[in-house]
Amino acid sequence: MNVLFYTASAEHAQWMAALRQALPGAALRDWSANAAAGQPAADYAIVWRPPPELIRELAGVRAVFNLGAGVDAIAGAPSWPQGVPLIRVEDAGMAEQMIEYVTYAVLRCFREIARYEVLQRERSWLPLARLDKRAFGVGVLGMGVLGSKVAAAIAAFGFPVSGCSRQAKSLTEVRSYSAKDLLTFLATCRVLVCMLPLTPATRGLLDRRVFSALPRGAYVVNVARGDILVEQDLLDALGNGGLSGAMLDVFAEEPLPVTHPFWRHPAITITPHISAVTQVGASAAQIADKIRRIESGLAVSGVVDAAQAY
Amino acid sequence: MNVLFYTASAEHAQWMAALRQALPGAALRDWSANAAAGQPAADYAIVWRPPPELIRELAGVRAVFNLGAGVDAIAGAPSWPQGVPLIRVEDAGMAEQMIEYVTYAVLRCFREIARYEVLQRERSWLPLARLDKRAFGVGVLGMGVLGSKVAAAIAAFGFPVSGCSRQAKSLTEVRSYSAKDLLTFLATCRVLVCMLPLTPATRGLLDRRVFSALPRGAYVVNVARGDILVEQDLLDALGNGGLSGAMLDVFAEEPLPVTHPFWRHPAITITPHISAVTQVGASAAQIADKIRRIESGLAVSGVVDAAQAY
Repeated sequence: MNVLFYTASAEHAQWMAALRQALPGAALRDWSANAAAGQPAADYAIVWRPPPELIRELAGVRAVFNLGAGVDAIAGAPSWPQGVPLIRVEDAGMAEQMIEYVTYAVLRCFREIARYEVLQRERSWLPLARLDKRAFGVGVLGMGVLGSKVAAAIAAFGFPVSGCSRQAKSLTEVRSYSAKDLLTFLATCRVLVCMLPLTPATRGLLDRRVFSALPRGAYVVNVARGDILVEQDLLDALGNGGLSGAMLDVFAEEPLPVTHPFWRHPAITITPHISAVTQVGASAAQIADKIRRIESGLAVSGVVDAAQAY
Repeated sequence: MNVLFYTASAEHAQWMAALRQALPGAALRDWSANAAAGQPAADYAIVWRPPPELIRELAGVRAVFNLGAGVDAIAGAPSWPQGVPLIRVEDAGMAEQMIEYVTYAVLRCFREIARYEVLQRERSWLPLARLDKRAFGVGVLGMGVLGSKVAAAIAAFGFPVSGCSRQAKSLTEVRSYSAKDLLTFLATCRVLVCMLPLTPATRGLLDRRVFSALPRGAYVVNVARGDILVEQDLLDALGNGGLSGAMLDVFAEEPLPVTHPFWRHPAITITPHISAVTQVGASAAQIADKIRRIESGLAVSGVVDAAQAY
């Protein structure tokens, strides 16, 4: 079996080693734009942010695997060969990391730690009354594999949790809304956690209209993609008190430019796209397992819906 | 039934109302040092930090209830009438709050948020490699009702959790040590969470000897009592890099004096004794339930061991 591989990331060698181990029978070929003619045709491709020349070579492969959960860099590429399935990595250790990050953000907000930090700087001892948890709604926008697990984890802490996705999900402990009830959903969110895929339908979705539909003083967590959020609208909402703060892991431009106003905003916490990093070993094992299933004629999950671009 | 009540706390009226509701048949008497002679003898007493004159009146009551989990303000009082059981409030909403607080502290430490905050101030985009969770041990010192629940909650996040208490507990998912193996326990703790009762045996226990038995760069969380920790030894351990930081909710003197060096220490996070506050309604209901059990000749839990003072 011939497998084409491409990533420009720093973990290139790590991926090659993990894939060799997970696919011992396969001939793994590192893609290069300048490869000599007469290379064997690939049966599968495993890629991260492939250049257009690579995408044009994908006609005829049985499936393309994306080295991560977010397929926005490829889904909908104009040169994508019709009928070739694109398959994303599902969870593989990402949910655990997202749960840690979002739990941290929600607890920090609920327990008013930022206010205690200000009081500490003032050397002021002032116990605040405990907030009412039943009135502290947490909303997860985007209830895919990761979003559903994060919603369940937050609900386990006793917060009333709502979830909103294209189609309403049926999950115990989570109140589910479909996309058409977005405004009703937003009104329940003291904390809004964005876990949407970036698609034409979600680009710029978190804008002034969304922020003003949240309860006044709400907090926003974005662990999805920077382009889903309109950055100037967020700054405006923080400025006029509509929002109290935000914890952001993703940005329209990454690395976040040194002149960007987010860096110095007192109500914004910035992390450099680390909320959940793809786990090489677990992801390679998952891809190998799916290849074996396809070779056995079995169905696999995580296939990207071309019409929805995720 | 005659019930004596005393607290000097701000929630006095709230407690009275909750106890009246929970014990509709009882005559609830607010204790006063200057009460007229001829008051009916009390069957039970419900108290918080009672003055010595009150303690002397407790001979003959069937049980004394403490309005909280920490009985250090009364246990071992020299005037305590022999044979009168002292009963603490158990959990009643405290565990949930402790779990929130400790989970926050552990996640903040594991996800290196303090380092990202420094990087944000420098406008520096620098993703750090994810720490190895299997090597990130969390230790809970004091495995009572609250400590055991906190340990289980942290273990559910996938951290290797150890617990240490007078007698080793048998809990799934938590490696248990008895007090004689304290040093072995400490060597497992990347984060040490103190949940001990304050007793003659634990006063000053967290000292330089304990801090130097932790892995270098360990983090300390104290949600128990300030007098368990030797504050100067903590400052020394932070100063020489033995410890990397601490999140402290309790202090030898509370409110923490405005001149105290903890306030301005960059590696210390201070909260004003809010990690878990007694929930009036749930606690009153628990006390009423225990009174009914005693009246029916049944055993109750939470009775303080006079010899151990907790």
